[in-house]
Amino acid sequence: VRHRLCVGVLGGMGPEATADFYAKLVAETPSARDQDHLRVLIDGDPSVPDRSAGIEGSGESPGPHLARMARGLVAMGAELLVMPCNSAHAFEAEIRGAIGAVPFLSLIDATVAATLEAVPGVRRVGLLATDGTLRARVYADGFAAAEIEALAPDAADQRTVMEAIYDVKRGRGRARPRSALVAVAGRLAAAGAEAVIAACTEVPLVLASGDVVVDGRTVPVISSTDALVARTIAAAMSDSDTD
Amino acid sequence: VRHRLCVGVLGGMGPEATADFYAKLVAETPSARDQDHLRVLIDGDPSVPDRSAGIEGSGESPGPHLARMARGLVAMGAELLVMPCNSAHAFEAEIRGAIGAVPFLSLIDATVAATLEAVPGVRRVGLLATDGTLRARVYADGFAAAEIEALAPDAADQRTVMEAIYDVKRGRGRARPRSALVAVAGRLAAAGAEAVIAACTEVPLVLASGDVVVDGRTVPVISSTDALVARTIAAAMSDSDTD
Repeated sequence: VRHRLCVGVLGGMGPEATADFYAKLVAETPSARDQDHLRVLIDGDPSVPDRSAGIEGSGESPGPHLARMARGLVAMGAELLVMPCNSAHAFEAEIRGAIGAVPFLSLIDATVAATLEAVPGVRRVGLLATDGTLRARVYADGFAAAEIEALAPDAADQRTVMEAIYDVKRGRGRARPRSALVAVAGRLAAAGAEAVIAACTEVPLVLASGDVVVDGRTVPVISSTDALVARTIAAAMSDSDTD
Repeated sequence: VRHRLCVGVLGGMGPEATADFYAKLVAETPSARDQDHLRVLIDGDPSVPDRSAGIEGSGESPGPHLARMARGLVAMGAELLVMPCNSAHAFEAEIRGAIGAVPFLSLIDATVAATLEAVPGVRRVGLLATDGTLRARVYADGFAAAEIEALAPDAADQRTVMEAIYDVKRGRGRARPRSALVAVAGRLAAAGAEAVIAACTEVPLVLASGDVVVDGRTVPVISSTDALVARTIAAAMSDSDTD
């Protein structure tokens, strides 16, 4: 029997995005019965300090808290860690430093790879992300390594993106954040983005492929959540250890 | 600041029902930002031995496995345990025995209480449940204590219910299991059930209030998942300890 890795999830950032990740992980896992599914341990901890404030230096760093969560999940039996929150990847080094040889699958790497698969030869993408994710340059650097330019919205549009993300977190309905994000995504596409990256796990809760159409052309929306789901299943199922 | 209890979830039975429980718990928690949510630890372990087989004595008992999961969640910091799987409540005593003074909120008790709230004065309900749940009599006894008669489907209809539940677990679409469950629920109502109990956490994934109409009368469907969500939030938020 092939051993399948137990997946540990650093969650709660936000809670709805974590629930969305888990539901998609279950839906996408090939299965005919309960026992075919992966074991998933989730620490849905909404008390992690605010990521954007930590990145900007205006608030407590979430790094030590994330390192503790990671160690706790490994102690519970997790053999592979993931974190469905883009901003928190600014603190990825602290997480990796806390868990020794246990693999941590980067949401950023998964999303860059999914973009290259969805839009072969892509040269320029647009980012829908938090201020913290942009400031930490996790996507700018990740895409640059693949020779892809990552466009951020202008300052006014970025404020709109942040408002939309916090609207989603407040659970105040989908229509307003969706139309705000569609408008910003359209301007990124008009500026040359061949794909729009839903680079915050709240964004795919309201924005999907097909929502962004510019001059009759549908602009692909790459969901960071979907990218991490696919990579997680592949990594957990393809482990070469046997038991 | 009022201390809110960290919720531990014995999950994976099945995984989709656990994801549904978590999503509803997040959606129903009063919140304006991530930090207002409850901390939720989930052990989504689909390798728990089959509950119906364990109850019937034809397979390994899941009791010791569930007791280990419960102890692990408490070790991780859980202060209140719940289990969104009705059949597994046949092994509730083994779980309680493993966790000392940590409270375990019964899904059965939550569902009986929710039924009394939704249909005041109710005398007779119909059960949509697994063979194992029926055989273990968890609902028959729970409702009898409230002087409510719990009707089970006849043998042919019960086979239909089991097929529908396993169709949901196999993820083969909603239409077939929904129409099967609607038909059985209609016959339970025709036999005198004033409400139908979705007494398996796969059932509310396809059957909702409004789906069952008999002689022009809408028969309430009581979701065991929703009942547990409401009780969990109330119990976790109302703890009298302060910190």
